[in-house]
Amino acid sequence: MFSPTFDELVNRLRILPGVGPKSAQRMALQLLTRNRQGALALSQALDIAMHSLHPCQLCRAFAEQTLCEICASGTRDTALLCVVESVADVMAIEQSGSYRGRYFVLGGRLSPLDGIGPQELGMPLLLQRLKTEPVKELILATNATVEGQATAHYIQEVTRQLPVSITRIAQGVPQGGELEYVDSHTLSQALQYRLPYREG
Amino acid sequence: MFSPTFDELVNRLRILPGVGPKSAQRMALQLLTRNRQGALALSQALDIAMHSLHPCQLCRAFAEQTLCEICASGTRDTALLCVVESVADVMAIEQSGSYRGRYFVLGGRLSPLDGIGPQELGMPLLLQRLKTEPVKELILATNATVEGQATAHYIQEVTRQLPVSITRIAQGVPQGGELEYVDSHTLSQALQYRLPYREG
Repeated sequence: MFSPTFDELVNRLRILPGVGPKSAQRMALQLLTRNRQGALALSQALDIAMHSLHPCQLCRAFAEQTLCEICASGTRDTALLCVVESVADVMAIEQSGSYRGRYFVLGGRLSPLDGIGPQELGMPLLLQRLKTEPVKELILATNATVEGQATAHYIQEVTRQLPVSITRIAQGVPQGGELEYVDSHTLSQALQYRLPYREG
Repeated sequence: MFSPTFDELVNRLRILPGVGPKSAQRMALQLLTRNRQGALALSQALDIAMHSLHPCQLCRAFAEQTLCEICASGTRDTALLCVVESVADVMAIEQSGSYRGRYFVLGGRLSPLDGIGPQELGMPLLLQRLKTEPVKELILATNATVEGQATAHYIQEVTRQLPVSITRIAQGVPQGGELEYVDSHTLSQALQYRLPYREG
């Protein structure tokens, strides 16, 4: 509107998830009028991150060196390995603060029609880790969707010969869930996998 | 979480208006996994925009050269000059598609306690434009807030000796407004400035 450079900035901001034309304009104006230093720092952080972050060679999340901070940490329980679909899932579990083991990121779910098979999900690397690391429990934390269940089932199939116990994250009524509004599949799972009562 | 570079990117994304910790993480993940080229283009657009955009020498919006595209355009009606508080207001009016004159951006509103006086709002430049350009009508389009009204009043005071007609944007019930929910000040303005009925 004011210059090609301004329009280019607004267009480029729209690649950010959840940013439409109006928010992109608002962002461009705010950066130009109030925070040029911040915008330059963001420009640099984007450039450095895109050039220096690549998959961690153990868990396939992001790393600058060979290993990410989680895999390189000496305080993680190497007996636990948690398999998730995406890096976002690693972050969600980390933020719950309830897991101190390590991870393996599939980077998707089994989907033969889209050409996503065991190779794409890194199964050879996962099997190698299970054979060379002191893993005692493999936690399947793929999504509770049809594809996530199928992926968990497949991993269970190919790893069940190994001397490692395989678990699946619990499914049931979520915290704050009201039975009246929970779908019947969830309700049937919650009933089927009921546990002895404890104060919680 | 995975590396200092990743955390730095998430932190820098939070300078964007409306972006909290969760969205910043989501943005960083999406750019890294799905759109590295887009992220590099955004980095470059930010860098170029912050270094090359400065105030237009006529209207004080953004320009790469001496003048912005609106001031440099040969198709604008130079008899109309619209005074607004911010560049965002210029964009809002442009997007309404109902104005073909030129603009003057105050870059704020009169606020003596914050040290924002006539000088800071560019009044000398505005008076010079009114004297050297063929402006016939000066449209005061500052916000309909107490500060915006005071600023409009002040501009009207210092320009009323000039051979230019001074107008103020209309105030009243907004499109879709229901009288029951409109505040009484707006309603009293809408009644006071009622116009002969026409089909709208």
